Amino acid sequence: MGLVIQKFGGSSMADPDRIRAVADHIARTRRRGDEVVVVVSAMGHETDDLLYLASQVSRSRPGREMDMLITAGERKSTALVCMALHDLGVEAHSFTGSQAGFLTDGTHTNAKIVELRPERILEALAAGRVPVVGGAQGVSGARDVTFLGRGGSDTTGVALAAALGADACELYTDVSGVFTADPRVVPSARRMARVGFEELLEMTATGCPKPAMRSVEFARRQGVALHVRSSFTWEPGTWVREEDPSMENAVVTAVTHDTGDAKVTVQGVPDRPGIAALLFRALADHDVLVDMIVQNTSAEGRTDISFTVPCEHLELARRSCHERAAELGAVEVLGDDGIAKVSLIGAGMKSHPGVSAKAFEVLAAHGVNIEMISTSSIRITCVVRAEQVEQAVQALHDAFELDRPVV
Amino acid sequence: MGLVIQKFGGSSMADPDRIRAVADHIARTRRRGDEVVVVVSAMGHETDDLLYLASQVSRSRPGREMDMLITAGERKSTALVCMALHDLGVEAHSFTGSQAGFLTDGTHTNAKIVELRPERILEALAAGRVPVVGGAQGVSGARDVTFLGRGGSDTTGVALAAALGADACELYTDVSGVFTADPRVVPSARRMARVGFEELLEMTATGCPKPAMRSVEFARRQGVALHVRSSFTWEPGTWVREEDPSMENAVVTAVTHDTGDAKVTVQGVPDRPGIAALLFRALADHDVLVDMIVQNTSAEGRTDISFTVPCEHLELARRSCHERAAELGAVEVLGDDGIAKVSLIGAGMKSHPGVSAKAFEVLAAHGVNIEMISTSSIRITCVVRAEQVEQAVQALHDAFELDRPVV
Repeated sequence: MGLVIQKFGGSSMADPDRIRAVADHIARTRRRGDEVVVVVSAMGHETDDLLYLASQVSRSRPGREMDMLITAGERKSTALVCMALHDLGVEAHSFTGSQAGFLTDGTHTNAKIVELRPERILEALAAGRVPVVGGAQGVSGARDVTFLGRGGSDTTGVALAAALGADACELYTDVSGVFTADPRVVPSARRMARVGFEELLEMTATGCPKPAMRSVEFARRQGVALHVRSSFTWEPGTWVREEDPSMENAVVTAVTHDTGDAKVTVQGVPDRPGIAALLFRALADHDVLVDMIVQNTSAEGRTDISFTVPCEHLELARRSCHERAAELGAVEVLGDDGIAKVSLIGAGMKSHPGVSAKAFEVLAAHGVNIEMISTSSIRITCVVRAEQVEQAVQALHDAFELDRPVV
Repeated sequence: MGLVIQKFGGSSMADPDRIRAVADHIARTRRRGDEVVVVVSAMGHETDDLLYLASQVSRSRPGREMDMLITAGERKSTALVCMALHDLGVEAHSFTGSQAGFLTDGTHTNAKIVELRPERILEALAAGRVPVVGGAQGVSGARDVTFLGRGGSDTTGVALAAALGADACELYTDVSGVFTADPRVVPSARRMARVGFEELLEMTATGCPKPAMRSVEFARRQGVALHVRSSFTWEPGTWVREEDPSMENAVVTAVTHDTGDAKVTVQGVPDRPGIAALLFRALADHDVLVDMIVQNTSAEGRTDISFTVPCEHLELARRSCHERAAELGAVEVLGDDGIAKVSLIGAGMKSHPGVSAKAFEVLAAHGVNIEMISTSSIRITCVVRAEQVEQAVQALHDAFELDRPVV
């Protein structure tokens, strides 16, 4: 007999039919002999609806009150799943984050878990009940309701898995796992049976939408095995675990892409110490999220600095650079929101030279120009024209034969 | 400087505009120098929507989970009012029933308040904040969320008024007070500036829809002055207080009516001890809510027993009577859902004979036949044909000159 955490996202809870399907799956898991602790998100788009409602009522929207409002969504979900379980003869008790023992700091709308005291969850399990916990919520030292932020339900699941020593944390969503590329772009993309934490973190950082990066990071630190799977097909999905050191890693595991970024180029700045510091301090002071940074070696004592930012930060980034252009001695500041990033990820890259060379050759053969390059030990990212990115993803996926099952 | 409890019902919270209007009123009350503790219901028809949602998900709907679900409505309201207050520069903190210190028994869906420990409310007031409390909710000894039932927000307001020694509990709703008759039926019906607890209790028991009877009873026991008023016009409404013993009471205060009842007549039962007991035990065992009971003196050793029940209990009541008809020795059981009740209420009736006589004369003069009569010391209720009830209400209102202001 094992213990699993089953976390159901908003799409898994979208309507009464889906909630009953979730309850049915929980009941089946129990019948197979496992103990289950359930974590639920708010139904469908309820969190967005609540944010919109708040925006209709108030301009200031203080964090303490936003958290009280938003957490009502998960609270409803917990009760509804318990009712549906009750219909199936499974005893279940709903718990808010506070009742489940999630103590957090007081950073409203984006609180961090400080401690988990899951006494009531353990009591419920001991009494043969299924505890159903509201995701992404807790209580602060000031006894106020707190919200862990978007995607925080995954974090709730991982924290419970770690505290209760669960065998796995199952993250149910509307996709059936983690894929070698976005299946909408690459029809032959393959669901991966397993992926390492390090690889998945690089993937979520470069465009893979699920699971939430924060929870993957947390699961890695806590040593919690994740299982990303579908609440629509219920088939086994993708296991996320520490890479097995006894196994050879695949050289390339996946191709990701992201069209949400824009590029800023500051042209002709003097090539001397302190210039980059001045530029990125200005951006940081305006809360601009900078992702890739590339600086070429200089010609005639001047250089260009390019960086990417989320599209919605482009105007702010340009303004920040223009403000400091004189100080920087820059010739020009250019913004470009017609770019996209394509990334190749694989833990085996560390020990296999030549992956970058092959990747660049593939892109060149397809007439895709590379505007920026950035790498980590297990990732290569290229900035290309947005209109060429899907072609680039397909070409790389084909060239590295990612549609072929790993033996 | 005083302290008032302001309780806002669902219609007062129906949409973002109304929520901002509520916040504006609270802010004005504070500027006039009073401290305010706010109690809010769920927005508009949200409680009904949640009940419907639960019915779509589950057949069994266990009480513990229904309470977790339903109380999400008031929770959202508390947060939204606080946000709107914040926009107006008024510091406010939301509190769930549990956070506000409402300890209840464990009777889910209809819990009773056992104790109120309003420490956090007092702390908020001391810090210059407006506490905004979720109505109709608390926490049980088992630390589970409980719901006080429909209309329970009024009870929350009264309990806070009593515990904090507030000057008044203002109940804001979509009507501007308590009227001498339903203004839809009697255009000249007058809003009463004041009414006694005893009279209002008789009125709510006989068809006056607001405020909730349970909270009026509770306010009387706790000696809390109620002020029933409108959150649409904001004009002063009706004060509900203990009758002033130094004042002469009005003989007749109001006419109420109710079309939601049906009549059952058990004909020809033997006139001997134990028959009524047998009949009403059978009804009680089927949870039939019996209101008026009338038994005439017998003729030839047999009598008729008539009683009224809510229309939705009529079939159950008939079945219960038929089951026992042989045992009762009854000749026939008749059901009639074409009736209505009209009631005349006035604390001065106690000391003024002849009110009944005049009432019956008025009804007779308008061709209204009386099918049953029941009285208390301050109320006369007649059962009449449903199609004549509005005419009866108008005639009695005219005859007792209830449209004339009390001097």
